[in-house]
Amino acid sequence: MNDHFADRMHDVPRSFIREILKVTLEPDIISFAGGLPNRAFFPIEPLRIAADKVFREKGGDCLQYSNSEGLVELRGYIARRYKQSQGITVAPEQILITNGSQQALDLLAKVLLNDGESVVMEEPGYLGAIQALSLYRPRFAPVAVHREGMDCAQLAEVVERNKPRLMYTVPNFQNPSGITYDADNRRAVAEIISQREVVLVEDDPYGDLRFSGSAVPSFYHLLPEQTVLLGSFSKTVVPGFRLGWIVAPVELHEKLLIAKQAADLHTCNFTQYVLLQFLTDNDLDHHIAAIVGAYGRQCRAMVAAIDRMFPAGVTCTRPDGGMFLWGTLPEGLRAMDLFERAVTRRVVFVPGEPFYTRPVSSATFRLNFSCVDEPVIEEGIGRLAEALKEMIEG
Amino acid sequence: MNDHFADRMHDVPRSFIREILKVTLEPDIISFAGGLPNRAFFPIEPLRIAADKVFREKGGDCLQYSNSEGLVELRGYIARRYKQSQGITVAPEQILITNGSQQALDLLAKVLLNDGESVVMEEPGYLGAIQALSLYRPRFAPVAVHREGMDCAQLAEVVERNKPRLMYTVPNFQNPSGITYDADNRRAVAEIISQREVVLVEDDPYGDLRFSGSAVPSFYHLLPEQTVLLGSFSKTVVPGFRLGWIVAPVELHEKLLIAKQAADLHTCNFTQYVLLQFLTDNDLDHHIAAIVGAYGRQCRAMVAAIDRMFPAGVTCTRPDGGMFLWGTLPEGLRAMDLFERAVTRRVVFVPGEPFYTRPVSSATFRLNFSCVDEPVIEEGIGRLAEALKEMIEG
Repeated sequence: MNDHFADRMHDVPRSFIREILKVTLEPDIISFAGGLPNRAFFPIEPLRIAADKVFREKGGDCLQYSNSEGLVELRGYIARRYKQSQGITVAPEQILITNGSQQALDLLAKVLLNDGESVVMEEPGYLGAIQALSLYRPRFAPVAVHREGMDCAQLAEVVERNKPRLMYTVPNFQNPSGITYDADNRRAVAEIISQREVVLVEDDPYGDLRFSGSAVPSFYHLLPEQTVLLGSFSKTVVPGFRLGWIVAPVELHEKLLIAKQAADLHTCNFTQYVLLQFLTDNDLDHHIAAIVGAYGRQCRAMVAAIDRMFPAGVTCTRPDGGMFLWGTLPEGLRAMDLFERAVTRRVVFVPGEPFYTRPVSSATFRLNFSCVDEPVIEEGIGRLAEALKEMIEG
Repeated sequence: MNDHFADRMHDVPRSFIREILKVTLEPDIISFAGGLPNRAFFPIEPLRIAADKVFREKGGDCLQYSNSEGLVELRGYIARRYKQSQGITVAPEQILITNGSQQALDLLAKVLLNDGESVVMEEPGYLGAIQALSLYRPRFAPVAVHREGMDCAQLAEVVERNKPRLMYTVPNFQNPSGITYDADNRRAVAEIISQREVVLVEDDPYGDLRFSGSAVPSFYHLLPEQTVLLGSFSKTVVPGFRLGWIVAPVELHEKLLIAKQAADLHTCNFTQYVLLQFLTDNDLDHHIAAIVGAYGRQCRAMVAAIDRMFPAGVTCTRPDGGMFLWGTLPEGLRAMDLFERAVTRRVVFVPGEPFYTRPVSSATFRLNFSCVDEPVIEEGIGRLAEALKEMIEG
């Protein structure tokens, strides 16, 4: 059986983070490597109460096979929230509940991509998206993201030359870089791809986690016909329920629904009911405010520690939300070297490599601040600073 | 966006059953069309207690991101159960937890099939498998199943001619036909495909639901290197949790794991914990015995009513387990005609068409007996008998 797998399996990267996380399980290690929400904010007791209610009131309904679209009341909640928080009008009929937004990526690629078709991917970009899309053998067209958003000169060139079918973006507090596309950048991006046969995916798992600055309007306002919105309850409620969604134009929704049905019939019914009950009985924004408060403090502590301790020449982004910031080493240094030195000092992070669609020897690295409190940040950044000084001073 | 989807979407059948189920939602209809387990046997209260315990004892663990393989203790339970109930030795490391066994089909096709490669499919065969595999654009090689199992002459020819890469079987109480491959048939099948580059998928969602006769050994005993086992808790506990699994040789398991991770990171963590708690605190076999008792009574009632009321020339299978039986009309009659007449008498079933990989005008039909009690069976079969008589007598 050994050497006889489908061609699509040949060039899928095995998750780099997965490998790294093995190191981080050792007890004395300080990890800035994870991409996990902070479990201290999981609403365990409210979810327990919600689950109990669902068992008692929904009996068999919550445990039987269900439809592939997802619970209609949950889709209604999501539609209302788009309206209230972003002024976006979508119908519940445009929403498909998925096993986390990772599944949304798989379904979109399945429905939209033939082998070798071109996909615009942020550089650096979310490695889970790179992995999911890789299985459909696209030609990746990486476009750099900078502090203010996507590199529009590069995008215009790529769109003209490659005729991409799909374009993947995380415009708010991007994973891995933490940057946010500003309003001008979004308008410029929309202008470049408007009227083209490209579907713009706006993946927004972190949008609610803003701790400074003010919200920037979604691409949906600019290109409603071409934009697909991905959302998730993983960062705002819990990731273990695996509940995300896709908002798509009706014709695309129909195709996604067929793919969803073929892929796994439907998303777990029980957790959809429990989440809906939780959302009905609790104020999600109040809950999110607590998360945002903590992540904001932790991000500020990390940025301050970096400013204070990292040697000159190492630069970092200053996120307004989300869970990550992105560092860049001085010319000529490699993040993998830093990683090796860091491990011996019992601190880890993710070197930039897996966030690129092509082999690079990267000077960049991702730091997570959602799961570490201020004293640990202080200690961990201190250890990293020592490793950096050792590298730079030779 | 209308006319620009991936080629793989062109020939996927939209679920026929899904369309039919819309009719069955009307309140006065008797439905033999569904494929649902009977919700009267959902262990709601034991699951409620298990969930409560999990929330209290596992805190954040059950709600955080988790590994792609699935909960190791649940995989251990599954491995022990294979040993105890079937004498099959598998390691937990060979088991991957999936979102129902439907996802197992998607992952297997993704990992094993290039466009146009050949797949042996039972005829008639499980429509969910036909749908899942269709998205990978295989060349289907249908092989007839009869009362004793697969048509081995046809299989031998297909294997020689088509060099299939995958072979899909439901050897116990097959969906849709209700038949079981007997031991001789399994040996003959194994001999034909032994040493060939074909992966034999033994999908066994109904194996525990035997109400007469005795168990027939799994293909795994005959071809351990080539057999992939699919299992599910949907028919024995609840389908709404979406918990199934794949047992595969280690090299294939590794590839499936990469595909799983790309597809949705991991299966819902919380329901895995709740199910494990339920299985720890309750006797699954005791629970299954109650289901089997009812399904057996209902199957016997359906067979008896058919024997008594259906006109001569209409034949039906006599299942030893599972949830379905399969009827065949006399030469020249079509199940779609029967369906139309049946709907006017407020009784429905699934005409044979969607269980074939090629367009047929089928004389066959599937009847489900798991969700209807004896008086309803009597009434519904009576209505069907009237429709049949009307058709046959012109």
